Amino acid sequence: MRALVFDGRLKFSSEYPDTIARPGECLVEVLRAGICGTDLELMRGYMDFRGIAGHEFVGKVVGGDPGLLGKRVVGEINVGCGSCDLCKADLERHCPNRTVLGILGRAGAFANYLSLPARNLLEVPDSISDEVAVFCEPIAAAYEILEQIRLSGREKIAVIGDGRLGAIVALVLKAEGACPVIGGHHLEKLQRLAKLGLEADLAEKLKPGFDVIVDCSGSEEGLLLALRLVRPRGTIILKSTAKESSGLNLASAVVDEISIIGSRCGRFAPALAALAEGKIDPRPLISAMLPLSDGVSALSLAAQPLIFKVLLSAVNSVLPA
Amino acid sequence: MRALVFDGRLKFSSEYPDTIARPGECLVEVLRAGICGTDLELMRGYMDFRGIAGHEFVGKVVGGDPGLLGKRVVGEINVGCGSCDLCKADLERHCPNRTVLGILGRAGAFANYLSLPARNLLEVPDSISDEVAVFCEPIAAAYEILEQIRLSGREKIAVIGDGRLGAIVALVLKAEGACPVIGGHHLEKLQRLAKLGLEADLAEKLKPGFDVIVDCSGSEEGLLLALRLVRPRGTIILKSTAKESSGLNLASAVVDEISIIGSRCGRFAPALAALAEGKIDPRPLISAMLPLSDGVSALSLAAQPLIFKVLLSAVNSVLPA
Repeated sequence: MRALVFDGRLKFSSEYPDTIARPGECLVEVLRAGICGTDLELMRGYMDFRGIAGHEFVGKVVGGDPGLLGKRVVGEINVGCGSCDLCKADLERHCPNRTVLGILGRAGAFANYLSLPARNLLEVPDSISDEVAVFCEPIAAAYEILEQIRLSGREKIAVIGDGRLGAIVALVLKAEGACPVIGGHHLEKLQRLAKLGLEADLAEKLKPGFDVIVDCSGSEEGLLLALRLVRPRGTIILKSTAKESSGLNLASAVVDEISIIGSRCGRFAPALAALAEGKIDPRPLISAMLPLSDGVSALSLAAQPLIFKVLLSAVNSVLPA
Repeated sequence: MRALVFDGRLKFSSEYPDTIARPGECLVEVLRAGICGTDLELMRGYMDFRGIAGHEFVGKVVGGDPGLLGKRVVGEINVGCGSCDLCKADLERHCPNRTVLGILGRAGAFANYLSLPARNLLEVPDSISDEVAVFCEPIAAAYEILEQIRLSGREKIAVIGDGRLGAIVALVLKAEGACPVIGGHHLEKLQRLAKLGLEADLAEKLKPGFDVIVDCSGSEEGLLLALRLVRPRGTIILKSTAKESSGLNLASAVVDEISIIGSRCGRFAPALAALAEGKIDPRPLISAMLPLSDGVSALSLAAQPLIFKVLLSAVNSVLPA
């Protein structure tokens, strides 16, 4: 099969051994995959990753569970052992023995095929296009915030970071009745986000006093800024895994009694429902779609500061036939 | 008056100008004061402190509010502006314009007299001795945890740090039905804590999987250890203001969706009630009591690793007359 393979350096292979379905799992033919900040981090050495990355996808079931065969699906990316306390508490995504699609112990979506258990797959309604469905994973990650904290709609909320994750988080918060302001560093991106109806401003112009801050900056500076902007007893949601930090001091979080809440993957069901209802339209965030064979260029492109979401198409051409 | 004065170096003065009551406030004659880790940090440069430190005290009202005159009192240490949103929400201790006894803009308890508003003072029942009442402030800080998170009593809880704060937090948690284990580094202290009926062990022997961890270590290592020991989706309460950190990385807090909650001062009422009911007896934590005139030695003593609480007596002799 065709695949993007990382062995310390990212390469495209057109003759990579086919991924086959693991015992009891489904084989999924990937239609579209999205490139996420975590993928870029993996290529920079995060988690000592090797193999096929990619965890945002929409695909078609071509093997396994007969009830799903031929269905268009998205898939939750964490596969737990199924028997530990966390799995039993419906928190498979925190199973200590989990594999994670394209991140940990499981080949990912930057390839023609991937394997996931049927229980991880959700059928995509016909009304949702491939280009929309592929956003299900990051949108689910944004909905996770609303499972962790309760919002009344009256809170002052800031999203730090004008990248793809910040934009998606802000779209989800807005769809659910909150009024977030995005604080970023790239005027051009902020202007594009404003065109989507989002409030967006340069981060340095934000004034302290926010009830909730969602840090999607992907850098330690984002958390430092959040600590400056949050009100006493406010909440910071940490969304992005920053690299090794230096000089981070949480004394102010103690003095001001701030809650810092780590937030990662979410359940797909609320995200898929929101997409089906048309509450969120992520398509304006697509900066480019490239064929999988141009995947190396696609990841380089996704790393550019002014780029939002880059999609990979598993077919050779992204143009309609 | 007599006072311990810090001007970059700590000195005892027997002829320091008397603290006088601020307009509308009460003048309190200090009977006992406690030395806290924050005091030691202030002497090391924290907050660029200058003046008279000390925020744990029991005293007698000698001026101001006639209803309180002659009463034995303890006092909440934060004095807010009284008119901002936080003050109106009964969160005077988070007022942005607050002064804080012996910490910020207000001379403290390491002296014969201090000034506090009547609303900050709570009368101490006769059943509570001076040596017990002086613990009201740190016990209130421990009760603050129970205002921030709800405990069922079934949680696995660890307290990191075998110092005075860790011991008080563990005593309070135990008094309120939880079963904390203290993780520390000093075998002798752990043995002393075990004699108080507390479960205590070397920190390196604790196994991961705690629902709640209270970091009272006063060091960055405590938070790093807490991040290793807490279960996915667990809670870390940050109690101590660690100094500048290096190498702290919160990626694991994101991946495991940990909540890190800063926790500082608490309301005195629950603490005083618990002391009045005899639910907590802090007296075994008193390592020494010295007269104020030996305050410089007392602070040195309090900085020794095997010492719990050191008290200062404002009278010249700590022995009964």
